[in-house]
Amino acid sequence: MKFLNKNLLKKIAKLEKVEYRFLEKQISKGRVVIPLNKKYANKKYVAIGDGLKIKINTNIGTSTEHLQIHDEIKKLETAIKYGTDTAMDLSTAGDLDKIRKKIIHASTVPIGTVPIYQAAVIAEKKYGDFTKMRFDDIWDVLKIQAEDGVDFFTIHAGILKKALKILTKNKRVGGIVSRGGAILARWMYINNAENPLYENFDAILELAKEYNITLSLGDALRPGAIADSTDKLQLFELNVLSELVKKALKKEVQVLVEGPGHILLNQIPYNVYLEKKLCFSVPFYILGPLPIDIAAGYDHISASIGGAIAALFGANFLCVVTPAEHLRHPTIDDIKEGVIAARIAAHSVDVLNFEDEWRKDYQLSLYRAKRKWADQFSILLDKEKAQKYHNLQNKIDVCSMCGKFCSLKIIETCKLLK
Amino acid sequence: MKFLNKNLLKKIAKLEKVEYRFLEKQISKGRVVIPLNKKYANKKYVAIGDGLKIKINTNIGTSTEHLQIHDEIKKLETAIKYGTDTAMDLSTAGDLDKIRKKIIHASTVPIGTVPIYQAAVIAEKKYGDFTKMRFDDIWDVLKIQAEDGVDFFTIHAGILKKALKILTKNKRVGGIVSRGGAILARWMYINNAENPLYENFDAILELAKEYNITLSLGDALRPGAIADSTDKLQLFELNVLSELVKKALKKEVQVLVEGPGHILLNQIPYNVYLEKKLCFSVPFYILGPLPIDIAAGYDHISASIGGAIAALFGANFLCVVTPAEHLRHPTIDDIKEGVIAARIAAHSVDVLNFEDEWRKDYQLSLYRAKRKWADQFSILLDKEKAQKYHNLQNKIDVCSMCGKFCSLKIIETCKLLK
Repeated sequence: MKFLNKNLLKKIAKLEKVEYRFLEKQISKGRVVIPLNKKYANKKYVAIGDGLKIKINTNIGTSTEHLQIHDEIKKLETAIKYGTDTAMDLSTAGDLDKIRKKIIHASTVPIGTVPIYQAAVIAEKKYGDFTKMRFDDIWDVLKIQAEDGVDFFTIHAGILKKALKILTKNKRVGGIVSRGGAILARWMYINNAENPLYENFDAILELAKEYNITLSLGDALRPGAIADSTDKLQLFELNVLSELVKKALKKEVQVLVEGPGHILLNQIPYNVYLEKKLCFSVPFYILGPLPIDIAAGYDHISASIGGAIAALFGANFLCVVTPAEHLRHPTIDDIKEGVIAARIAAHSVDVLNFEDEWRKDYQLSLYRAKRKWADQFSILLDKEKAQKYHNLQNKIDVCSMCGKFCSLKIIETCKLLK
Repeated sequence: MKFLNKNLLKKIAKLEKVEYRFLEKQISKGRVVIPLNKKYANKKYVAIGDGLKIKINTNIGTSTEHLQIHDEIKKLETAIKYGTDTAMDLSTAGDLDKIRKKIIHASTVPIGTVPIYQAAVIAEKKYGDFTKMRFDDIWDVLKIQAEDGVDFFTIHAGILKKALKILTKNKRVGGIVSRGGAILARWMYINNAENPLYENFDAILELAKEYNITLSLGDALRPGAIADSTDKLQLFELNVLSELVKKALKKEVQVLVEGPGHILLNQIPYNVYLEKKLCFSVPFYILGPLPIDIAAGYDHISASIGGAIAALFGANFLCVVTPAEHLRHPTIDDIKEGVIAARIAAHSVDVLNFEDEWRKDYQLSLYRAKRKWADQFSILLDKEKAQKYHNLQNKIDVCSMCGKFCSLKIIETCKLLK
């Protein structure tokens, strides 16, 4: 905990409304992480893990089809405005070093990356084919990104050659839906070699320790269809991740574990339990999960259902899923919709555990009962939308839903309410 | 079950993918209802209750601020298009008889109403104040609506004078948020008399039996703020509803019970258990529930979280909550958003119990893995939105999210997938 000094922890404990000693203990046990590169590139710190409020992450970054840096910065700003706790730069096109530096510079929240993306992009340019990439190429990217101040790395070290055998023998509906996972699977298949991130995990741990980079162990084999939920492949990888978590904890490297994906509703609780059990209760970072597959265009809503249940049962960190998931590179509006949906899921659990969060809803409801509209809007997750919706009519002190039959107004003069 | 003949039940059993004998047994025990006025005004039947797919209802109808019949018909059509199973006409302004007739005529799904609304509107005109309304006025409305072919009535017979005493003695944050409940509370308060719907419940049962109208026992005292979840008042009313359910079952009148409202996430399962236990396992019709209060503008998402959990634990019938909830009379687009969010919640539970529902996601995922876009869209809850999102780029066979780094495409040539 060399880079997490007492003053910083006190500040975070205060923000999180928990005791300093509790926070310190959770960190020492690996149950809480504070993604924070020793370069201190960002202005806001965030703690993620058991006993703390649920955090959310938003993915931004260019794709080969959309590579305007400006748009990605706007997405970052939008995500922060609506309450993201961290952001990940998943860019795969354009000047990747420049984009990352700009994002880190513009961000007030910790920034994560998936270094294998940049390594693959560089290898494509250098060798004409990313499968010709060597670990040295990956290492160069890790070093550059660490120096730039990235706070957490997703490392897909859990997908092994053996997993590919399992994959060919066990029918999977959704295949591999992790980009990093697919890159590594293809690399292993073509080179008939073991996952370089797994083989060199000790070196990666050293680097992470040096820069105080939190390792987020990627779930390359997460199910991408509910038909694949909690299948052999997912569980195989989870066991490898368990081994890697152990190594990281031993070296005092901050670590968290990424989770699925597409998971049937009634399987979400035990997916969380299993991850917590096998991975020594390190923070669980969950993508969704989506309890159904047929809601493309509305996957932010499916993810909100899955995320709320996952968080209720112990997941700590929710990855924003936007309405664009499975369909297109997200727009700024998609990011906004996704962040708000994830915040709703997070808040639905935070109100159960944190007085200050519960109090927001309490205060809102008092204002609502008295039809103090402007006061209500100030507390809402999206005051602009509420204002726009309500302002369609503004001559009455009720809303246009019930009009003069507003239940609150009807009983107001009855002196039934305190 | 005089109006539910064997042929009809066989047809419904087939639609529901359950055995005829099972359906018949569930109906005889009151665990399943089929809202169906003997006038057979609608063309589609629907069964609601334990062992069947989750159903959803959409509220439409004019308010004193918006009274275009045309818009309400469009909302009905929109709700049906996106998969509502029933609709309720909650109109409180304009020519109510005409509106209801038009809605019933236009509908292919069962129609419900809250007759106390029309009774109050008529009493306002007749006496200048709805609290001057007598039971005869309510009775006239019940008769007219029954004759028109309404399939289910929401009857707020569970709010009693005693409840008003509890209300004044126990601080409530959200007050009374049911329109019917507020109308009756004011009526009882001003007249110092017992709830006329409770007092005359036997007569209402007779009428319901005569027309085969399903009674939906309204939760006039549902919490309207998470601070009020599962409070004394809510539980008091639930006990009264239990007594009324017993009476209805005895008279072989189809009955279901309405439920909250705003309920903390971890209280949703036992709210469902309690309702099922106290109300003899008759179908549970739940409004939301919303696990947080501060998401106005996005309450369809909060309701989707609450609805999915409620349905997982036994709720049978979800009431659509739109993004307009708490803010304005919903537009056609609001209705669409709300219906889709409720369908997502319902489907997330149906995939667990019904092979044909699960198969939709299975097929979708197979198409997705092969990037057969048109085939995917045909299965989605909203194909137009997906098409619009994806079509922003159409020269490549991947989506613009990952572009050339599409995980599915990367591993395609690896022969890793069956």
